[in-house]
Amino acid sequence: MREWRTDLEQVTAFAPATVTNVSCGFDIFGFALNAPGDEVLVRRIPTPEVRIRKISGDAGQIPLQTDRNTAGRALRAFWEALTPPMGFEIEIYKKMAIGTGLGSSAASAVAAVWAANRFLKQPLQEEALLPFVLEGEKLTSGGSVHADNVAAALFGGFVLVRTAQPPDIIPLHFPRQLRVAVVHPHIELPTWQMRRILREQVELKDAVRQWGNIAAFVAGLQNGDLHLMSRSLQDVIIEPVRGKVIPGYEAARQAAVENGALGSGISGSGPSMFALCPSESVARKAGEAMRAVFHRLNLQADLYLSPINPHGPKILEMR
Amino acid sequence: MREWRTDLEQVTAFAPATVTNVSCGFDIFGFALNAPGDEVLVRRIPTPEVRIRKISGDAGQIPLQTDRNTAGRALRAFWEALTPPMGFEIEIYKKMAIGTGLGSSAASAVAAVWAANRFLKQPLQEEALLPFVLEGEKLTSGGSVHADNVAAALFGGFVLVRTAQPPDIIPLHFPRQLRVAVVHPHIELPTWQMRRILREQVELKDAVRQWGNIAAFVAGLQNGDLHLMSRSLQDVIIEPVRGKVIPGYEAARQAAVENGALGSGISGSGPSMFALCPSESVARKAGEAMRAVFHRLNLQADLYLSPINPHGPKILEMR
Repeated sequence: MREWRTDLEQVTAFAPATVTNVSCGFDIFGFALNAPGDEVLVRRIPTPEVRIRKISGDAGQIPLQTDRNTAGRALRAFWEALTPPMGFEIEIYKKMAIGTGLGSSAASAVAAVWAANRFLKQPLQEEALLPFVLEGEKLTSGGSVHADNVAAALFGGFVLVRTAQPPDIIPLHFPRQLRVAVVHPHIELPTWQMRRILREQVELKDAVRQWGNIAAFVAGLQNGDLHLMSRSLQDVIIEPVRGKVIPGYEAARQAAVENGALGSGISGSGPSMFALCPSESVARKAGEAMRAVFHRLNLQADLYLSPINPHGPKILEMR
Repeated sequence: MREWRTDLEQVTAFAPATVTNVSCGFDIFGFALNAPGDEVLVRRIPTPEVRIRKISGDAGQIPLQTDRNTAGRALRAFWEALTPPMGFEIEIYKKMAIGTGLGSSAASAVAAVWAANRFLKQPLQEEALLPFVLEGEKLTSGGSVHADNVAAALFGGFVLVRTAQPPDIIPLHFPRQLRVAVVHPHIELPTWQMRRILREQVELKDAVRQWGNIAAFVAGLQNGDLHLMSRSLQDVIIEPVRGKVIPGYEAARQAAVENGALGSGISGSGPSMFALCPSESVARKAGEAMRAVFHRLNLQADLYLSPINPHGPKILEMR
């Protein structure tokens, strides 16, 4: 039997928000931001269980029951696999709204498992944590597995999900100069609904255009060819459908590109939109122009500016 | 008016056979072989015209009329654009069969235009030759433009066709150790028929699997990750349909992989099959195993072994 020599009482970890799909790469591309993100505190308890003590922040709709909460379920899966001689109580500090398309539930699950792994003196490598956070993510997608948010939050950087089941996650090189503007307009679009409006069939000729862009985007990203990235940041299949239900989508996208963004689109299933930019100053200009579009529609909107976060989660406190 | 100071009488050029689609990359991937390939001689004539003097080799079905022949039509487009003070007569030496899925018509068109450009002391860069060879290729696909064979034959190496119209061709890095086995079973499958059996619609979930593989293949190719290339050389959309009309397809593919190939599939619209291999010796073993499958079906089959040809066309003779 494994010996657990942790003398810690509690560990708090941060895991980042993530942008997925990234125009042409529906269900396969994702990258991590520096901020926002969620924080989760994992505390030792004597009883053999995983329980959620509290959720703070914009937590109105997030269940406190362990098995109905992505962080709770992920942490329980980790705890059942490792069978440490203590239970865990967690506190979830939501630092971003839920339902934004920025992977909030994934961030909480990654932070919880990351903190617990550190609490136990890192028995597992980060790759080995993926199955547990995927267990949590199943809650958000009705059983089907979407690994893009959790993979980007867990590994950081820009990731490719070749397949979600079994997970085959490939880190992609990317130019470190890239900056991202993310704008979250305050409207509600349930993920399941955004998935349901998609057609189950696509035209082969559209699929071919899409995979030409996907291949070109990967080549551009890895070779640091910003012009090629820009040409290929187009989605001819998903965004033409989803864009219609996000007020201001087309105007915001155009505003980003007119202000120098390499490309712009919907983050995850929305309503947040991202703009991938060649510099900090362009990201600021593009982001402010996007936010102004939503303001003109009388929608509140948050603006985040960030590089692509190469690290993923981090430990905030241990004691 | 431009001065043409060529003192040449004739130029002969070679352009290579090409493997396209490459499993997951229907209509977007292509690479050049060292052999086989076609040779075209371009000779000065005093009359202002482009004409075909002869076609040798397996030329039963290839028309001699300039405008019904891919090399003739490509060369005429070049000649009309540059208006040199002489006409051209060409001789086409087919060094491979037509209708094999190895881009024979593209090779002839590229060789013709390459020879003529050299004849005129290279007024155009190779990128500028693409529109002319595409003009020829239109003959083979009923008006729609498929740039994969011509781009690979003209530029050499491993190319990505992001879009065919307008052409956006991206050369991809590739590991120089790669070797290719190509087996051409002697059966006839007209290109138009192989296109017609494809469904016009595909399942979104299949498209997502396909683009995960495409993105992963580009990452693997560019980073020299042979394992990743191998995992992603899968086609869930086109080959399951086309494979059914090529006798021996599944057995040949399995034979290639069992003998160490990274992956194997249909070249172009078939019937030729390729195996992408990590070394010369594996390519030989895999190629012979594939050929043996066709022999067991009482089909004659040619085997070609080649690296990926990084150069494209070459000049064989000038005088």
